[in-house]
Amino acid sequence: MSAIFHAGISGARGRMGRAVSAVLDAREDVVVAARYDRGEHPDLSLCDVIIDFSTPDASVELAQACAARGGPALVIGSTGFSPEQDAEILKASETVAIVRSGNFSLGVNILIGLVEHAAQRLDGRDWDIEISEAHHRRKADAPSGTALMLGEAAANGRGEDLEDVRTAPYDGITGARESGKIGFSSLRAGGIIGEHTVMFASDDEVLTLSHSAIDRSLFAKGAVAAAAWVRSRKPGLYDMQDVLGFRQA
Amino acid sequence: MSAIFHAGISGARGRMGRAVSAVLDAREDVVVAARYDRGEHPDLSLCDVIIDFSTPDASVELAQACAARGGPALVIGSTGFSPEQDAEILKASETVAIVRSGNFSLGVNILIGLVEHAAQRLDGRDWDIEISEAHHRRKADAPSGTALMLGEAAANGRGEDLEDVRTAPYDGITGARESGKIGFSSLRAGGIIGEHTVMFASDDEVLTLSHSAIDRSLFAKGAVAAAAWVRSRKPGLYDMQDVLGFRQA
Amino acid sequence: MSAIFHAGISGARGRMGRAVSAVLDAREDVVVAARYDRGEHPDLSLCDVIIDFSTPDASVELAQACAARGGPALVIGSTGFSPEQDAEILKASETVAIVRSGNFSLGVNILIGLVEHAAQRLDGRDWDIEISEAHHRRKADAPSGTALMLGEAAANGRGEDLEDVRTAPYDGITGARESGKIGFSSLRAGGIIGEHTVMFASDDEVLTLSHSAIDRSLFAKGAVAAAAWVRSRKPGLYDMQDVLGFRQA
Amino acid sequence: MSAIFHAGISGARGRMGRAVSAVLDAREDVVVAARYDRGEHPDLSLCDVIIDFSTPDASVELAQACAARGGPALVIGSTGFSPEQDAEILKASETVAIVRSGNFSLGVNILIGLVEHAAQRLDGRDWDIEISEAHHRRKADAPSGTALMLGEAAANGRGEDLEDVRTAPYDGITGARESGKIGFSSLRAGGIIGEHTVMFASDDEVLTLSHSAIDRSLFAKGAVAAAAWVRSRKPGLYDMQDVLGFRQA
Repeated sequence: MSAIFHAGISGARGRMGRAVSAVLDAREDVVVAARYDRGEHPDLSLCDVIIDFSTPDASVELAQACAARGGPALVIGSTGFSPEQDAEILKASETVAIVRSGNFSLGVNILIGLVEHAAQRLDGRDWDIEISEAHHRRKADAPSGTALMLGEAAANGRGEDLEDVRTAPYDGITGARESGKIGFSSLRAGGIIGEHTVMFASDDEVLTLSHSAIDRSLFAKGAVAAAAWVRSRKPGLYDMQDVLGFRQA
Repeated sequence: MSAIFHAGISGARGRMGRAVSAVLDAREDVVVAARYDRGEHPDLSLCDVIIDFSTPDASVELAQACAARGGPALVIGSTGFSPEQDAEILKASETVAIVRSGNFSLGVNILIGLVEHAAQRLDGRDWDIEISEAHHRRKADAPSGTALMLGEAAANGRGEDLEDVRTAPYDGITGARESGKIGFSSLRAGGIIGEHTVMFASDDEVLTLSHSAIDRSLFAKGAVAAAAWVRSRKPGLYDMQDVLGFRQA
Repeated sequence: MSAIFHAGISGARGRMGRAVSAVLDAREDVVVAARYDRGEHPDLSLCDVIIDFSTPDASVELAQACAARGGPALVIGSTGFSPEQDAEILKASETVAIVRSGNFSLGVNILIGLVEHAAQRLDGRDWDIEISEAHHRRKADAPSGTALMLGEAAANGRGEDLEDVRTAPYDGITGARESGKIGFSSLRAGGIIGEHTVMFASDDEVLTLSHSAIDRSLFAKGAVAAAAWVRSRKPGLYDMQDVLGFRQA
Repeated sequence: MSAIFHAGISGARGRMGRAVSAVLDAREDVVVAARYDRGEHPDLSLCDVIIDFSTPDASVELAQACAARGGPALVIGSTGFSPEQDAEILKASETVAIVRSGNFSLGVNILIGLVEHAAQRLDGRDWDIEISEAHHRRKADAPSGTALMLGEAAANGRGEDLEDVRTAPYDGITGARESGKIGFSSLRAGGIIGEHTVMFASDDEVLTLSHSAIDRSLFAKGAVAAAAWVRSRKPGLYDMQDVLGFRQA
């Protein structure tokens, strides 16, 4: 149905790079034209799109190189950028199409849209929002980046800035919960791949929107879907909400 | 903030009628102007809106009486109407504003909107939909009317008719699940007030949208919210999706 | 089936006292012989058992009065005792039968037993334990006393002291989870009556043991069940594990 | 810590046989001494224990061969035996140690013990039991064998026979739930590896005991744990409850 395209993998030897490689190999409409890592300089002209799970430094350098020659398109899954690096990515997107996201799962990105919808409609004076997540024991930070994305969606739905309404974990003598706040809680246990739940609760009812990952290849598949989408887009900085059509005019 | 309005309760001695009465009594912006049951004929001119949890016969008679004099507005929570009775309600709504619903919970009605959104976006070839519900041991039918409303929302989101895609409970040697179908399962146990879950599952991830009732007064409060909304509307047949602003032009 | 007994209610005008009163009134095998509050001195000889949800001071005074005359039996649900007050209760139990508990729900007390069983059998080097709880927005402390009871049961099952293995909520850069620890997390939202979950997770599977309260009368009913049990016991300090037969020789 | 042992794999080319092979290869205390399939006749003297996921016919033949020469020990995970085949396995176990189970997950087998405990203590007149399970879309039977094992544990705890208390899925006009019955419900969706939940619900509270598989290798690991346990046992027919020490004298 769709034409064959040529993909490159940046950060190819990393955990995500290898997962992306496995997903690409299983698709009949993609040729992997280049695999490279830090210090290697691929021939960009071989690729229609590059999927990049490397480091902020390498991602910025790659974005600038693509921008300089007007392509190929990029999918950036690296995390931990500084504000200056964010600005470089944004600048590069003036001449090249870039999808950038902290979570390429289709389900999570649909969940983000649903959370924003629900938060718009549920009056913060009556409804409390709590976001909880569970991950494997090796995860070193909390809450997860995805939990924070969900919190931002909830805050946006209410016309708030997450930083103004986010509360610390409840621990000790807390007093009654403040109206309008958004709480976060994290579990770390065993091999849990990733679970996220957004709860809206009033005095009388609870609405719960959850996502659970079954297979670790999930995030690689989402990045590849983003690649298939972005390779024929106009220059610009996109995210998975664009890829999924949640942000239509 | 809002002006005081006068409400009537039809089916006032029933379980829902008494719950509605308790909710109205607790609000400062409502005067209960009439409480009546089958065989009683209230002075309709006393009311801005009537909340009706009676029987299909009584509801149709009430709708016709209100239509004949151009008011008051109606909230109808009775269930079990025949197609002929449905048509009578629709006809009455040409000259009086009527909200009719099988579930007045705000949370459930928001869930219905979210389920339709999600079903639109999640390809039925990749994502299976399962709807499950749990209720107290006295509930005599399964699946619940609300589970079926959720199933309709999911089918609508996919451009399907629920009757074409609904499957019987899995029991015995079923063979592999058919793509595109919507499954239902029911639990009956103890005093569970009401829980509904819509699961979307692909090979790699699960999106779960759930509602749980904490307090039985929930449904009465929703009917009263519908009354406050409908009393100043133009004639027409509305449902809770209208009340909540989910069906904007 | 069982003989009629006479119960007194201490702290009768408090929230739990009134709930206990309603439960007792609905039983045919109990006569409420005395209702009293702080500063009132009931005739203890009228009662076979007293259910006490008052304050630590009042509870200690009551226990001493019952001990001095060899009865009636006591059910103590007050919380927040000092170590000295704990010692006074223990001393009183030498001459009067006392059930004391932080949670009279049958389900929670069965859960405590199951958690200890499971923790004994699941090797702490492979299985992580996380305890989470959710309560209404008015609850002023976290984690709940019941969550801590569950944590103690889990630690006991592993031959550990909870204080040695309890971890603070995960927040910020935490590093990988330490083996053998027990985590706690709390949600506060809307009108949630009370939910507790103990999760055991290995690399490959998750065992989850949960309790959810449907109705606020639950705890009063449990205290009355304890009263029916303790009124014919020998002097001693019991808890709900004894009442339920979990602590058989 | 433990001595090296020699394992054989029967049904080595099947899905479970390959999973067992991968688990054995990753352990340092096991040598895989034989891999064979239907029609192949291994040298049994090479093995301390054989793990068998083949067919009832092949399993019976293998058990008889092991019994004839007094070893090696067996772990049988095949399913679908006739009563006559059951009797053959039982007879073979007079001279060889055999572990046989429908589910080798440690977590599920602990869950079975907890369910029986809880069912013993929760009066069937007050508490309803519902068992639900969810599996991937390719699963062809419902309820799962594991759900039925959980149902048997619940019925045993109540001193009942599952066949006497099992109810069909709720569908249509069912009337109120019958006291003392055990209900089952099944979901089939996407790639769900396997989830089982046993719910006990009274009018006021719900106790929920659940198991969820994270990784498909789980069942192979459990079979290997059974092999390590059974290789030094006396002749007899064991199950995972024995392996886990749940059935101590």
